[in-house]
Parts: sequence; C-alpha cells; structure tokens
Amino acid sequence: MDKIDFNISIVGIGLIGGSYAMSLKELSLGKIYGIDIDEKALEDAETMGIIDKGYVSPEIPLKDSDLVIICLYPKSVKKFVMDNIDNFKTGAIITDVTGVKTKILDEINYGLREDLDFIFGHPMAGREEKGLKFSSKEVFKGANYIITPTNRNKCENIKLIEDIIKKIGFKNIMTVTPEEHDKIISFTSQLPHVIAVSLVNSNNLDFDIGLFTGDSYRELTRIAQINSELWTELFIENKINLIKDIEIFEENIKKFKEAIIKEDREMLIKSMDNARKRRKEMS
Amino acid sequence: MDKIDFNISIVGIGLIGGSYAMSLKELSLGKIYGIDIDEKALEDAETMGIIDKGYVSPEIPLKDSDLVIICLYPKSVKKFVMDNIDNFKTGAIITDVTGVKTKILDEINYGLREDLDFIFGHPMAGREEKGLKFSSKEVFKGANYIITPTNRNKCENIKLIEDIIKKIGFKNIMTVTPEEHDKIISFTSQLPHVIAVSLVNSNNLDFDIGLFTGDSYRELTRIAQINSELWTELFIENKINLIKDIEIFEENIKKFKEAIIKEDREMLIKSMDNARKRRKEMS
Repeated sequence: MDKIDFNISIVGIGLIGGSYAMSLKELSLGKIYGIDIDEKALEDAETMGIIDKGYVSPEIPLKDSDLVIICLYPKSVKKFVMDNIDNFKTGAIITDVTGVKTKILDEINYGLREDLDFIFGHPMAGREEKGLKFSSKEVFKGANYIITPTNRNKCENIKLIEDIIKKIGFKNIMTVTPEEHDKIISFTSQLPHVIAVSLVNSNNLDFDIGLFTGDSYRELTRIAQINSELWTELFIENKINLIKDIEIFEENIKKFKEAIIKEDREMLIKSMDNARKRRKEMS
Repeated sequence: MDKIDFNISIVGIGLIGGSYAMSLKELSLGKIYGIDIDEKALEDAETMGIIDKGYVSPEIPLKDSDLVIICLYPKSVKKFVMDNIDNFKTGAIITDVTGVKTKILDEINYGLREDLDFIFGHPMAGREEKGLKFSSKEVFKGANYIITPTNRNKCENIKLIEDIIKKIGFKNIMTVTPEEHDKIISFTSQLPHVIAVSLVNSNNLDFDIGLFTGDSYRELTRIAQINSELWTELFIENKINLIKDIEIFEENIKKFKEAIIKEDREMLIKSMDNARKRRKEMS
C-alpha cells in the first residue's frame, strides 16, 4: 500500500474503534476522522492525537473518506449505512467488525449503492472492558482476522483491506463464506462466552473463590466480564447455530457426568485423552 | 524457620515433586532426598542438582527425613504411607499434594503411627504437562495453597509447613475443613476441567479452529490438556460434590439457552450483568 491521501473514517470510537485509530495513525495513509454520538469520546481521541478530527454528524467526514470502518454493534451497522447512504464518497470501501455475518450482510448488500464496496470483516480481538480508554494497538497484535467476501467485492479492494490488516498486526487472515463464519464463530467464540457466564452463575459457595483457585477457574471465567448488550445481539442474531452448539455441548457434558456416576474409568480416560490430543493439535 | 539439618524426602519426582525439590533446595534446610520408582527421573534430578540423592527404595531416606512430601496420585498416597509405616523417622511431619481430601484423610489417619503428624495440603498449582522436565520454581509463585488441618496436627508443625510454603512462593494459604475443601475444589477446579474437556469434545468443525479464535476458546480449553489417569481418580473420589456442581451448571446453561431461544433479552442481559459483577469481585 503506497497510497497517499487515503482518508479513513472510523465510526464508533470505543475500544475497537480507538484501537483501529491508534494502529492506523501510524501508517500515515491520510486523514483519520472519528465519528461518534459521544462528543467526549471524540474530544479525548483528538487530545490523544489518534484522530485528526472528530464529528458527531457523519456527512462531512464520509464525503472525504476512501475507507470507512464501522465499529458499531451489529444492528447499528445497517442503520448507519442506510441513514448515510448518500454521504459516502464515490467508490468508497466500507468494512465492519461485527461478530455475526449472514443476516447483516444480506440486509446491507440489498440496499447498498452500486459504487460502494462493503467488505465484511471480523477482527477476533477484544477485551473485557469497553470504551476508548482501554484501546491499544496491542489488541490486534497476533490476532486472527476473518474476512467474508461476496461476489460484489472488488479484488483490489479485498487486497487493500488485507494489506492494512496485516500492517496493523493481525497474524492470520482467514477467508470463509458468511455462513461458515457464523457456524465457526458460534463454536469458537459464542459458546465459550455462554459457558463462562453460566459457570460464574453456578457459584453457590460462601467463600471468596479467588483464594481457592488455580488458574483454571480464572481462565474459564475471564470472558464472563462481558458486554451484555452487545452479546445479547450477537447470540440472538446467530441463534440457530448457537443453540445447536450448546446442545452438542450439553450432550457431551451429560455423557461425561454419567461416566463419573458409573465410575466408568475407561470411558473417562478415553474422553480426556481425546480432548488432550485435539487441543494440542490446534494451531 | 531457622532449623538446620532439617532433611526432606520428596516422594514422586514428577512435575510437582520436581518443582518442590527446586524450590526447597534454595532454602538450604538440610538434605533433600528424592524417592521414585523411576530411576531415570532420580538420575535426572541428581544431575540437575535439585536433590542430594535419589532412592528407589524408601527406607533409608525416610528414616533420615524430618519432612516427607508425598507427590503421588491420590490412591498411591495411602499405599505409600502404609507400606512404609515403620520407615518414617520418629516425629516426622508428612504432607501431600492431593486434590481431594475427605476420604484419603480418614483412611490415612486411621492407620497412622501415633508419633507421625500428617498435615494435608493442596498446592493449587499445576501445568498441562507432566514429568520432571516441566518442573519449575515458577509453578508455585503467587499460587494459592489450601491446608486442611485435623485435631491430630500439632500447631507448631502446621506453622512450620505454612512457613515453608510461604518461602517457596505461595501467596495465599487458606485453612478449611476437608469437607469444605472438597466442596470448593469441586467447583473451582474439577468442574472447569470437566467443562474444558467437554467443550473440546464438542468440536464438529472441519476447520483448524486455532485460526478462527480469539483468546476465549484458547483460554477455556488450555486445561483440556489433562492428565487423564490422575483426573479420573480425582473426579471419582469427589463424585458426590462434582455431580452436584455439574448439575447446577447444566441447569444454568439450560436456562441461558432457553432465554436465547425465546429471545428474552432482559433475562440474557440480567444473567450476563450478574456474571460480570461476580467475576469482577473475585480476588
């Protein structure tokens, strides 16, 4: 990427938007604009020097932006695009950071202006905190990024997004269909969050369990410090995949429980050996 | 502790035994003997300089040891003590590292020589690997240690164990009854291991999921790299507590699943907010 005067608007200056601003600022591609309804966040981002200018009203920055990165909750992405459909610069590339793809992609592509290229992406990076003050370039370092191209997307634009993504520190960029994305994410991300929340809610002890745990409980429950509004949207948007995965998991834990009840050592050992092997083989 | 010539036998020179040897060597209390049926492990430990001498036959080192730390699987602890009941030095302190307490404690105390003081302990430290080569002083640094005293134990001996435990890097020493220990450990350690194994075994994807995950799946499944023989013993020994905890967890995940099916946003948000709050409050 040797473009100059390649201006970028980041919509939503929270943890992820702020982290994008910090990371992109270093690439010096062009101006970086912040768009948010929260004036304080914009002021802070300006003070931090991670955006050139912040706007509550999207019209001016969008008309000047070659790339628009929408870092909003799933349902707000479509609304933002449609509300601003006439504001985007001709030929602009748009991308998102949403954790579910199939529905949102169909809905947005349906109403999208012909000249605009929306390339759907999912940075698999986050933190248990929210807001600009937890932003950091480190959030993306070594992380996985999933891209779900459609045949509307131009090759050179996909290439450009991939280029930027690599430059700001992502390690693996995987390309899958939106349907595959939602199936994979249901298992690798949503199910673990459901489990972590359910585990913390199962605590019936009268002790401060932080004093009685090794790393295991701590590790399994870190992500229970969850953004409940965001994840409610994600779970419901992807509920067909997620319910299926929860049920497979329920079946597995039930089988394991029954083996303990029956003291079926052979089955327990087989089950654990299988899990160990599969976990070790994971990249 | 200003004792000198305070000799220690470590029984079982694996990950935990080796880590004890390394940590205790630095305190220079007296001789450190290793006892193991695996001659190679003893030779390696001698070469590494973390024990003064290794023995396959326990008689000689036990007769000379003021403290015996038994780092064996639960069922082997009782057998070792009973097989060697005449070999322990008069007034010796014995301790263990076993992850379940109630049963083992009753069984051992029943047959114990009057002059011996068995102080049951549980270092909440481990790794997903086994064997001496994964031993490290770091294993214990900042970890929790649980002690389950009985009224057979002498105060000064408990004090001495606590002293050593602090010196080798443990952070919190918690004292509870054996029954409380097993109840707590069922939830904070055994249930997380059951969940991690069941989660890995629920993977039906045709992808290398390491390329499609953030930290969540990785964190929730690290402990699925489990020592299946050891944990089969632990799960079965503590099955009454563990089955109860698995069932409470099953109930919670079922409620969460039903809220997703019904798209009950209020209930989902309440459940996640509750989990986030409780997880943040944990020490």
